[in-house]
Amino acid sequence: MAQSVLLTGAAGRVGDAILGDLADAYEWRLLDRDPPTEDLPGEFVVADITDDEAIREAMEGIDVVVHLAGDPRKTAPWDSVLTNNIDGTQTVYEAAVDAGVEKVAFASSNHAVGAFETDERTPDMYRADDDYLLDGSELPRPGNLYGVSKVAGESLGRYYHDEYGISVVNVRIGNLTQNHPPIDYERGQAMWLSYRDCAHLFDRCIQADYEYEIVYGISDNDRKYYSIESAREALGYDPQDNSAEHD
Amino acid sequence: MAQSVLLTGAAGRVGDAILGDLADAYEWRLLDRDPPTEDLPGEFVVADITDDEAIREAMEGIDVVVHLAGDPRKTAPWDSVLTNNIDGTQTVYEAAVDAGVEKVAFASSNHAVGAFETDERTPDMYRADDDYLLDGSELPRPGNLYGVSKVAGESLGRYYHDEYGISVVNVRIGNLTQNHPPIDYERGQAMWLSYRDCAHLFDRCIQADYEYEIVYGISDNDRKYYSIESAREALGYDPQDNSAEHD
Repeated sequence: MAQSVLLTGAAGRVGDAILGDLADAYEWRLLDRDPPTEDLPGEFVVADITDDEAIREAMEGIDVVVHLAGDPRKTAPWDSVLTNNIDGTQTVYEAAVDAGVEKVAFASSNHAVGAFETDERTPDMYRADDDYLLDGSELPRPGNLYGVSKVAGESLGRYYHDEYGISVVNVRIGNLTQNHPPIDYERGQAMWLSYRDCAHLFDRCIQADYEYEIVYGISDNDRKYYSIESAREALGYDPQDNSAEHD
Repeated sequence: MAQSVLLTGAAGRVGDAILGDLADAYEWRLLDRDPPTEDLPGEFVVADITDDEAIREAMEGIDVVVHLAGDPRKTAPWDSVLTNNIDGTQTVYEAAVDAGVEKVAFASSNHAVGAFETDERTPDMYRADDDYLLDGSELPRPGNLYGVSKVAGESLGRYYHDEYGISVVNVRIGNLTQNHPPIDYERGQAMWLSYRDCAHLFDRCIQADYEYEIVYGISDNDRKYYSIESAREALGYDPQDNSAEHD
């Protein structure tokens, strides 16, 4: 029997990439603040991520949670990320643990480590011949308050894993675009994540056995300054795309 | 002229230790939710740490902030640490940056790394002949939601330092007790911080030149599993006490 997967923030871009390739792979329960505007697989729950009761209800019978919901704007104001990203993520973990969920894949972000991109390092670090590489063992350096909220979300995952044994993977998603990497944007090319690699990566988050992991979610770009080794080793991630292979 | 120092959460235990030794060393502005019950140096502001306007006003003319305010209970519920510890700390940093404050010393906690104390490691790690040592370069592992809130507070400091250049030190305070280390409590003896070492440590946080630091705030205990080297090197911390020298 297919696993039951709750996808929060299902109507966003990451959800779009995941459902595009994996619509038939799981029993989906999709959750978003807004009702769907297109035909989507599975069951759809309209609820705010901070609505404790609705989230608990949505968690019933779920094996794995892919938690994408939150304010996705890198310029999001503090009040919004405090509520939607930090409090919302705690709501999800608390409900997941109580419902006996096995795994949570949390959509973290490159902005959790954005301040490593200093004036001294850029734009060199975005180039293929530069060997600067973050691997997830470094202490986070958020580049904005949105990034701070993602560090807090990662830390919630660390706590809920250590305390309750739930498997947690924090995926620091790069620059997700459909069909083609960003044009004339070196940073975006360095951290490009193609739609199919995104779907495959979250498929591995749902399937693989792990305890607690931090992985970078990017394609196998020549320009990369994020290591994808932990995603390969912990999850069996095997990306097919590389921003250098596009014009 | 003495530096002007804003001490938030001044009525708590850490504030008591600091003011006990340093009452005459600085121009103090003390801030707490509750009015003082004893005679204290300087000026006293009664305000909640999340009261944006009051915090901005309290920040005027301040050189250094020692930010202790927050829910200090390791069992504090999420809603309280979300508001008082996470949102409150963001309020302090935002106001500090706008007011041109030079430095912020943030009262973080041993609970930010409490989950390193696993069943396999304890009680051995609390003993003098065990060489397990955390030094602040490790990724945090909070032992409770209070600890999660402290990790979030540290991350806010990282962001405000990187973005605005304000000097930040996160002090992971151990077990602060007056006169005597905890009795029959190995963990507390391992992370004991005496009152005079606490005052001296925060004195160094106010005086020293640094960029961004994470230090452990404990006395020079034989039993320690937190390194005090970064406090020595970054701040010139020179502790006088050791829990092994008490019965």
